[in-house]
Amino acid sequence: MSPVQLPDLTTSDVVALTAAVCDIPSVSGEEGPLADAVEAALRSYAHLEVLRDGDTVVARTTLGRSRRVIMAGHLDTVPVQGNLPTERRRGADGQEELWGRGAVDMKGGVAVALQLAATLGAPRTDVTWVFYDNEEVAAELNGLGRVARRHPDWLAGDLAVLGEPTSGGIEGGCNGTLRADVRATGRTAHSARAWRGDNAVHAAGEILTRLNAYRPAEVDVDGLVYREGLSAVGIRGGIATNMVPDECVVTVNYRFAPSRSVQEAEAHVREVFDGFELSVTDLAGGARPGLTDPLVTEFVSAVTATTGGRPGPKYGWTDVARFAELGIPAVNFGPGDPALAHADDERCPTEQITGCARALGAWLGGDVQPAH
Amino acid sequence: MSPVQLPDLTTSDVVALTAAVCDIPSVSGEEGPLADAVEAALRSYAHLEVLRDGDTVVARTTLGRSRRVIMAGHLDTVPVQGNLPTERRRGADGQEELWGRGAVDMKGGVAVALQLAATLGAPRTDVTWVFYDNEEVAAELNGLGRVARRHPDWLAGDLAVLGEPTSGGIEGGCNGTLRADVRATGRTAHSARAWRGDNAVHAAGEILTRLNAYRPAEVDVDGLVYREGLSAVGIRGGIATNMVPDECVVTVNYRFAPSRSVQEAEAHVREVFDGFELSVTDLAGGARPGLTDPLVTEFVSAVTATTGGRPGPKYGWTDVARFAELGIPAVNFGPGDPALAHADDERCPTEQITGCARALGAWLGGDVQPAH
Repeated sequence: MSPVQLPDLTTSDVVALTAAVCDIPSVSGEEGPLADAVEAALRSYAHLEVLRDGDTVVARTTLGRSRRVIMAGHLDTVPVQGNLPTERRRGADGQEELWGRGAVDMKGGVAVALQLAATLGAPRTDVTWVFYDNEEVAAELNGLGRVARRHPDWLAGDLAVLGEPTSGGIEGGCNGTLRADVRATGRTAHSARAWRGDNAVHAAGEILTRLNAYRPAEVDVDGLVYREGLSAVGIRGGIATNMVPDECVVTVNYRFAPSRSVQEAEAHVREVFDGFELSVTDLAGGARPGLTDPLVTEFVSAVTATTGGRPGPKYGWTDVARFAELGIPAVNFGPGDPALAHADDERCPTEQITGCARALGAWLGGDVQPAH
Repeated sequence: MSPVQLPDLTTSDVVALTAAVCDIPSVSGEEGPLADAVEAALRSYAHLEVLRDGDTVVARTTLGRSRRVIMAGHLDTVPVQGNLPTERRRGADGQEELWGRGAVDMKGGVAVALQLAATLGAPRTDVTWVFYDNEEVAAELNGLGRVARRHPDWLAGDLAVLGEPTSGGIEGGCNGTLRADVRATGRTAHSARAWRGDNAVHAAGEILTRLNAYRPAEVDVDGLVYREGLSAVGIRGGIATNMVPDECVVTVNYRFAPSRSVQEAEAHVREVFDGFELSVTDLAGGARPGLTDPLVTEFVSAVTATTGGRPGPKYGWTDVARFAELGIPAVNFGPGDPALAHADDERCPTEQITGCARALGAWLGGDVQPAH
């Protein structure tokens, strides 16, 4: 079988290119054929140096510009639910939409990047295009994280733009996220003689009382307001239907503003659930929006001149936080409504795809300043 | 292979007989070999009419006495946990104990019944000895229930004594039991944007608050005080660790005094959890202790004259409730501490086994009133 191929990156319409990228299925762990097609397509452009690690493909210009922008997007998707191949349909408002797995998260962003990588032979900054694997699964598999560990120099730069869906607006930074198991304990007994035991599920009532009383903060960070949240995402307790449970575990998720450190976030949650056993199972800091950085300001001005929107905060944790850890300001900017990511009816107005391509092309392509 | 055999019922010591009954493993569903041995042993006594349904064996005298006592016990046990064959050991207090699966629940009671069935050729009342299968598993498999449906005449009588472990005391009747799923509902959302959802686990806090506020009643029934209880026996909620749950189910178990009907019990629980969806998953009425019945009074006097104890209430639901449904007063009386039933270190002081045999023998064998 010959390898799958992408259409010509230079001449193809970016919506057709998005459909083609979607139509090469690449569920997490199975990105190989798409990564091969991406690598093969990019290697035909002399202005790009192409690197590969696993199923992550990196292509970069080496024009000696004073500044370097990293444009990053993941190749993988969540599992296909009978929603491939893609279809173009007319939406209720008459708008053309591209339907299918990846249309939102995030093959539109990938297609925009592929086209600009091919066509921008002399961008105004040097650009590193990163197409990575395993974003939708466990953090330790994440291709961007792997490259950061193995080849940190591949990710050097002054600003990172992650093509995650933002409905074509700019979303700065992201909230951090902490998960913890809060444990109420007791003593088991037969439920016919419940007074001999000490019911851990009843004791967990106090954990829920505290969650109900909690008032999440709204925190201004660099001019964007991040809304926090503390939620139970799971609860479990009980051994048998005739036993008083001796353990009840409430799994909580704290989403915290990027101005808080991970240490501060953990201390806060421990204070809220003081008196209960608590173990942190997942903890990742957020990313400040970096809107005060000069290069970010330029990017925001150029993009909003085209799209007309204003930057907002990103609530969900995204890989911008990985760039924040490397000290690189990072924003999210891509086509598609994030609320439709992973949905069976995942779909994107095609105008958002062309709009993103136009905005990024105008910024990176315009006003080229030759090196030195 | 020749079928397993029990020792001679007439000449064997009742503790040795208990050990022999234990040493024929009979986990629920696998009672066949023991039922065969019981049937074969009982058929050799001319004063007994022996009947069989599945792995339930019924043996009865037909002396034409004015009253009939039903002595019932189950043949099955919960799974063996390396605790067979039985061993005799000396307890900390110097008392001899029989260790092994079934020593408590309830092969001591079975052995006592087998010995008395064989030796009491002319008991003071007619006696129906019932050895049944599948007590430890789902109610619909219960051998006593099956016989009640198929051969109700086999269970006709004026008093039933169930040989369940009571540490050799008399425990009258039993509490009823109701299980229900109490459901809190909400609306799902990504936990990064929790304010868009409505957290069902948080909503379940109110269910736990009501459980914590609940004060169970103590109810006097026929002179015995039944202690009630309302306990969460399980709780579950949560779809994924980044989702606001839209459902949380608390499984509650209400143990209610035998003076309440099942309808009253259900109405009570619905009132406690008013405002929540509630579905009853299991409901079985209790059994009044029947201590005002003349035959029960005689039984209690005779047994307590030997054992010295006073009757107490039975809190756990037992098959006495099946006799209560048939309109037959029923009590629990058998060797072994119920708290050790099903335990890996299940064990019974051998003195309790001989004590029960002595007390029942004195009652059933003494003061024989010839028929007519």
